Amino acid sequence: MQDRTNRPRIVIVGGGFGGLAAVSELKGADADITLIDRRNHHLFQPLLYQVATTSLGPSEIAWPIRQLVHKRQNVTTLLGKVAAIDTQASLVRLEDGTSVPFDWLILATGAQHAYFGHDDWEPFAPGLKTLEDATAMRRRLLMAFEKAELETNPDRRKALLTFAIIGGGATGVELAGAIIELARITLRDDFRNIHPEQARVVLIEAGPRVLANFKPEMSAYAERALKELGVEVALGQAVTEVRADGVVYGGTELKSATIIWAAGVLASPAAKWLGVEADRAGRIKVDDDLSVPGHPNIFAVGDTVTATTPGGKPVPGIGDAAKQGGRHAARVIIARLLGDTAPMPFRYRHLGDIATIGRSRALIDFGWLTLTGGIGWWTWGLAHIYFLIGLKNRIFIALNWLWIYLTGYRSARLITQDTPTTTKD
Amino acid sequence: MQDRTNRPRIVIVGGGFGGLAAVSELKGADADITLIDRRNHHLFQPLLYQVATTSLGPSEIAWPIRQLVHKRQNVTTLLGKVAAIDTQASLVRLEDGTSVPFDWLILATGAQHAYFGHDDWEPFAPGLKTLEDATAMRRRLLMAFEKAELETNPDRRKALLTFAIIGGGATGVELAGAIIELARITLRDDFRNIHPEQARVVLIEAGPRVLANFKPEMSAYAERALKELGVEVALGQAVTEVRADGVVYGGTELKSATIIWAAGVLASPAAKWLGVEADRAGRIKVDDDLSVPGHPNIFAVGDTVTATTPGGKPVPGIGDAAKQGGRHAARVIIARLLGDTAPMPFRYRHLGDIATIGRSRALIDFGWLTLTGGIGWWTWGLAHIYFLIGLKNRIFIALNWLWIYLTGYRSARLITQDTPTTTKD
Repeated sequence: MQDRTNRPRIVIVGGGFGGLAAVSELKGADADITLIDRRNHHLFQPLLYQVATTSLGPSEIAWPIRQLVHKRQNVTTLLGKVAAIDTQASLVRLEDGTSVPFDWLILATGAQHAYFGHDDWEPFAPGLKTLEDATAMRRRLLMAFEKAELETNPDRRKALLTFAIIGGGATGVELAGAIIELARITLRDDFRNIHPEQARVVLIEAGPRVLANFKPEMSAYAERALKELGVEVALGQAVTEVRADGVVYGGTELKSATIIWAAGVLASPAAKWLGVEADRAGRIKVDDDLSVPGHPNIFAVGDTVTATTPGGKPVPGIGDAAKQGGRHAARVIIARLLGDTAPMPFRYRHLGDIATIGRSRALIDFGWLTLTGGIGWWTWGLAHIYFLIGLKNRIFIALNWLWIYLTGYRSARLITQDTPTTTKD
Repeated sequence: MQDRTNRPRIVIVGGGFGGLAAVSELKGADADITLIDRRNHHLFQPLLYQVATTSLGPSEIAWPIRQLVHKRQNVTTLLGKVAAIDTQASLVRLEDGTSVPFDWLILATGAQHAYFGHDDWEPFAPGLKTLEDATAMRRRLLMAFEKAELETNPDRRKALLTFAIIGGGATGVELAGAIIELARITLRDDFRNIHPEQARVVLIEAGPRVLANFKPEMSAYAERALKELGVEVALGQAVTEVRADGVVYGGTELKSATIIWAAGVLASPAAKWLGVEADRAGRIKVDDDLSVPGHPNIFAVGDTVTATTPGGKPVPGIGDAAKQGGRHAARVIIARLLGDTAPMPFRYRHLGDIATIGRSRALIDFGWLTLTGGIGWWTWGLAHIYFLIGLKNRIFIALNWLWIYLTGYRSARLITQDTPTTTKD
C-alpha cells in the first residue's frame, strides 16, 4: 500500500475516452490517482458495430485498463461499480462497500442506449453500447439467417430475412451498411435454401435526413450510398410500435425478426449521484470549466454532460469531445493544485464528423474539407487505426480490414451462447 | 431446393475434426451430403486453452462451418441438435422437429467433460470444451485477481490467488503453464495491492505422472518444466472433494477460489441414439471398419467411439485420430457406393504426442524422435499453425504468438459478462 496521507487524491470514474485522457494528462502530477470502472476494459466504441457485424473480434477493440496505465505507479485501477457519491464527506461509494476518498473527482461515465418511455421495446430492439451487446447482436443477426434456412413458411422466412434498424445517426447508418454487405457479400454462397442477398435492410429515421449532425449535402450522399448498397431508407417516419414480430412506423407495419435500436441514449446516473440538475437525457449541465455547479472540485466530461462550444452550439456526444473534456478537467485540477485560480473555460474544438457506409465508402466533414467515397473510406480507416491503442491492435485491425476488403470474408462469424454449456447439454 | 431423389444421401453429424475430414474426403462423390452441427462453428480444440488464458480471441480458433464447405454445392449445412436417430426409418431427428433422411450416416459427435458421479462438483470446477467454457474460464481467472486486489482479509486473498487444476493430461498441463505465466509475466505490473507473481498454481493428478500417454521420460521432463515455471505438481493424489472454497486431495485441503476440471470426458450420446453398446465413458465399440455393430451403413468416429490400433492399443482421443477416422469412414462409403464389398479395417497411424508448457517450452514425441524445450516449442507452434484452417488465421495466430513471445503481453484479457447489459444496468 502506498502512503496516501500527503498527496492530493484525484479519483476518475470511467475508463472510456474521457477518463483515460484525464489520466494521461495528469502524467507527472504529484498526486494519488484512482481510476474506477465497472469493466476491466477500455472499449473503442466507434468500431463496436464491426464486432456486431462480424468483421472484428471483441479483443481487437478492447484493452485491459490496468495494462494501459500499469507503468504509472501513482495510478491505482479499481474494478467496481459506483453506488453513490457522498459530496459532504468527499467519498465515492462502490457497490461492494468500498469507499474511495477524493480531493478532486472527474466523472466520465458516458451514456447508454435508452427507450424514453418505451422500455418494453428493449427485448425486441436491443441497442449497442457494450461488447456483450455486440456479441449478442452478432448472434441474433447470424441466427436469423440460420432460422430462415430451416423455415418453410414463406412469410416467416421473409420476416427472418428482414432487418429493421431504428435511428439514422452514425451507428444506424454504419450498422445498415455492414448488415447489407454481410448478407450480400459474406454470406452469399453459404446457404442452400435461402438467398441471403435477398435480405432486406430497412433504416428508419424519424427526422428528415440521416446523419442529422452532418451538413445536408453529406446526409444526401449517405442516403444515396446506402440505397446503392441496397438499404431501404425510411425518413420522417417515427416508430410507434416495436413488437417481437416487427415494427410499425409512419402507419406502415414491417414484419421483421431482427430489430436494432440505434435511436436514443441516456446519460449515466452521474447527476443523480451528485443530486444536481440534469437535462432530459440525464446529462449534467456543467459550468464552463466543466466543473459541476456548486462543486468546484468535481468535474464531469463526455457523454454524461451537456456543454456548449464558444459559438453557443452544443458539444457533440462523440469520443473526441470526451477526450478534450477529460484533458481539460485534468488541466484545471493541475492549475488549481499549483495555486492558479484564474478562470479556465473549456473551448471545444470540433475536428470533424466521420461515418462509414459499407466496406468502401465513408464520409468525412472537416468543415474546410469534405471527403466521400473511396478516398473517404481510406482516410476513415487510417484515422481509426491511428486512434487505436497500441501497435499490435493497429497492425491486426489494418490486416483484418485489408483482408475483408480484398476477400469479402469476415472471420468473426461466431454464434456463441448466453451461458456456458454443461455436461447436461 | 436440390433434387434429392436419385443420389445417395450421406449425413454427417458433427463439424469437428472427424466430421470435416469426412466431408473433405467425400469431395467428388456423387451424393447429397448434409452436415449437421449444433454450433455454427468448427473449433480448433487444441488451442482452446489459449482462449481461456487470454492469449487468443475466440474468432482466431473458430470458423463458420458454412464457409468451410460453401463451395461444395452438394453439401448442405444444418444448424441443429440431434434429438434421436431412427435406424429403422433411417432418419436423424433434430430437436426442432426436422427429420433428415440418410442412406449413409457418420457420427462424429465428440465428447464433453464429465464428473463421473460427482456432477455436484461442476459449478465449482468447470471444464473446457467449448468457446463459452473458455470465455467463462477467462472471466473467472481474471476476476480472481481483481477480487484479490480489493480483498483485505489475507486468508481470502490467498485463496483468490490459488488456482487448482484437476487432471494432469495435456489440457491440465497446458492450462497450468499458461496460468502461471499469466500471473508472473502478463499481470506482473498491473496491480497495486497484490503481487500476481505470488499466485499459486497447483496441478493435481491422481495417477503417478503427468501426461500419462507420453513416454515416462517425457512426463518427467514436463513435470520438471512445470516446476521450473513455478507450478506445484501433486501426483498420485485423487481428489475426494470439490467445494466453492477449495479442493481436498490425498487428505490435503487446499483453499482455492478458482478450480478447473481437466480430468474426465464422456462421449456424446451417440450410443444412446442408436441403442448400441457403449463402454464406461459412453463410447461406442465400433467394428474394425468403424461401422456400428449391426448397422453397416452407420459409422462413428473420433472421441465418441473406442477403437484399437492394429497393435491392440486403444486409439487415443486426439484430433488427428478423429481426422483419420472421418477420412476412413468416408472411404468405406465411397467404396461401398462403387460396389466394392471388400473388408476395409481402420488402421490408425499414430503421428505423435505433443504438449506445450508455457510460452517457450513444448514436448513432442514422434516415437522415432523426441523434442523438448525451445526447439519443441517452435516445432509445436509451426505444426499448429500448419493445421489451422485458412491463410488469414495462420498469419494472425503466428503474429499473435510472436507478439506474446516478444513482449509477454496478451491482448485478449477481457472480462465479459454472462448476459448483455440493459438500460437498467
